[in-house]
Amino acid sequence: MARAATAIENRQPEAESLLRELFPRTGRALVIGVTGSPGAGKSTLAGQLIKVFREQGRTVGVVAVDPTSPYSGGAILGDRIRMQAHHDDPGVFIRSMATRGWLGGLARATTDLVLLLDAAGRDVVIVETVGVGQDEVDVARLAGVTVVVLVPGMGDDVQAIKAGLMEIADVFVINKADHAGADRLDRELHQLPAREDGTAPPVLKTVASEGTGVAELAEAIRNVAPQSGRLERLWELRLREMLRERLLDRYPPGQFAEAARQVAARQTDPYTVVEEWLRT
Amino acid sequence: MARAATAIENRQPEAESLLRELFPRTGRALVIGVTGSPGAGKSTLAGQLIKVFREQGRTVGVVAVDPTSPYSGGAILGDRIRMQAHHDDPGVFIRSMATRGWLGGLARATTDLVLLLDAAGRDVVIVETVGVGQDEVDVARLAGVTVVVLVPGMGDDVQAIKAGLMEIADVFVINKADHAGADRLDRELHQLPAREDGTAPPVLKTVASEGTGVAELAEAIRNVAPQSGRLERLWELRLREMLRERLLDRYPPGQFAEAARQVAARQTDPYTVVEEWLRT
Repeated sequence: MARAATAIENRQPEAESLLRELFPRTGRALVIGVTGSPGAGKSTLAGQLIKVFREQGRTVGVVAVDPTSPYSGGAILGDRIRMQAHHDDPGVFIRSMATRGWLGGLARATTDLVLLLDAAGRDVVIVETVGVGQDEVDVARLAGVTVVVLVPGMGDDVQAIKAGLMEIADVFVINKADHAGADRLDRELHQLPAREDGTAPPVLKTVASEGTGVAELAEAIRNVAPQSGRLERLWELRLREMLRERLLDRYPPGQFAEAARQVAARQTDPYTVVEEWLRT
Repeated sequence: MARAATAIENRQPEAESLLRELFPRTGRALVIGVTGSPGAGKSTLAGQLIKVFREQGRTVGVVAVDPTSPYSGGAILGDRIRMQAHHDDPGVFIRSMATRGWLGGLARATTDLVLLLDAAGRDVVIVETVGVGQDEVDVARLAGVTVVVLVPGMGDDVQAIKAGLMEIADVFVINKADHAGADRLDRELHQLPAREDGTAPPVLKTVASEGTGVAELAEAIRNVAPQSGRLERLWELRLREMLRERLLDRYPPGQFAEAARQVAARQTDPYTVVEEWLRT
């Protein structure tokens, strides 16, 4: 599994034929996306969820994505440390991933890793990713159940974001619920306008550092009713991304740098450049 | 300008020919990206920066991007309210933008709006966007100077993120510097490893709600030395994105939904589907 994961991350040619072969075996795992702002305690929460699922006898795979890492790489360490409690448990497979740099490919690798873990028979696959909204890896695009982790005491911009989250969250978690402001956040979440179908995600409180509320969260996750058409919508986005990426692969990398130099110097404009590329 | 901005946002056919014509007039504005977590006070800070630049007699354009808005739309309101102090000033043009939905286009529209404001002769263009890292609109891809706004008292995940930010920040701002933890954050930022070229971004403290430290921030922004090759790198990414988007436009939208249905039902696999599309 580790070797296959590395092949996927490094875009080795054998990865695609492997995934193609594995694909019919996928679609069985419960894929849980855990997302939220930096500092919300996602890794700690994921670690506690692993514990609960393991106690239930389920095998777990984790893909931890850190979009800050194109610049550093250091961020991965935190995840590893927080999850190393499960290091010696063969029932837990954890893969921390940096991004593949500026030019994308993270969404592709993440989706493929989830498929790999799914095909390998993991009962539960947890995808942990920072941020919500238009991130390159939008966990809501990957997961069967999306858990949005919030913490008390954030600024007022959050109000607007919470409204947006309503559309992607299957479950809200108020983590660090022992901090001041947890009840206020709870009220705010319950006051959000309902979703289009009239439902609202459940709101759970946890103190992940102590494990409080995590069993209830695992239960709430299992009780999320599948949304009709969701898988189809996810695959539509994914197919579009795959096609886009592979189309671009057909152009020689060097042409971009040369054209960029000319555009930056205003010797030409980007619209003319791209139009010419499309013609050839 | 407002009409041209709308044409750009709505991808009206005349937008591209307009931009093509305007392109040689671009490259003169000081483009400032303001980014940071939700609740960091970016809009308030941007509003105060506008005030400082206006007092210096400079004209300002603002593009406020809110990646949470594909789901809500509500988030735009906050920006508008916070910046409406400048509403009657013709020297300030503000455009708040929701995203164009799941399928992207936000990066394109934002870049094009910046070019529009630049070509229109705005001395300063401020791009305000939530989040850092792999957002669809990565402000570091657009801006001449990237200001990363942090606030005291965030969680420990932030440590890792701060290290990542080192590579994209030209200026660090500790906003809400009157809150507990500001000095600690200041120390942490000064302890980050230096950039590859041995330099480190300056760290400034502000209390944006009161305007404290904003004049010094404006000065620091103007003193940022241009990084060699930066514009070329930005254009390389941008050209790649433009090409990718336009290549995809060539495929009929309906084919994605139909294929997604088959993939979700495991009647075929995504790799085979995309390969077939590439062949035709």
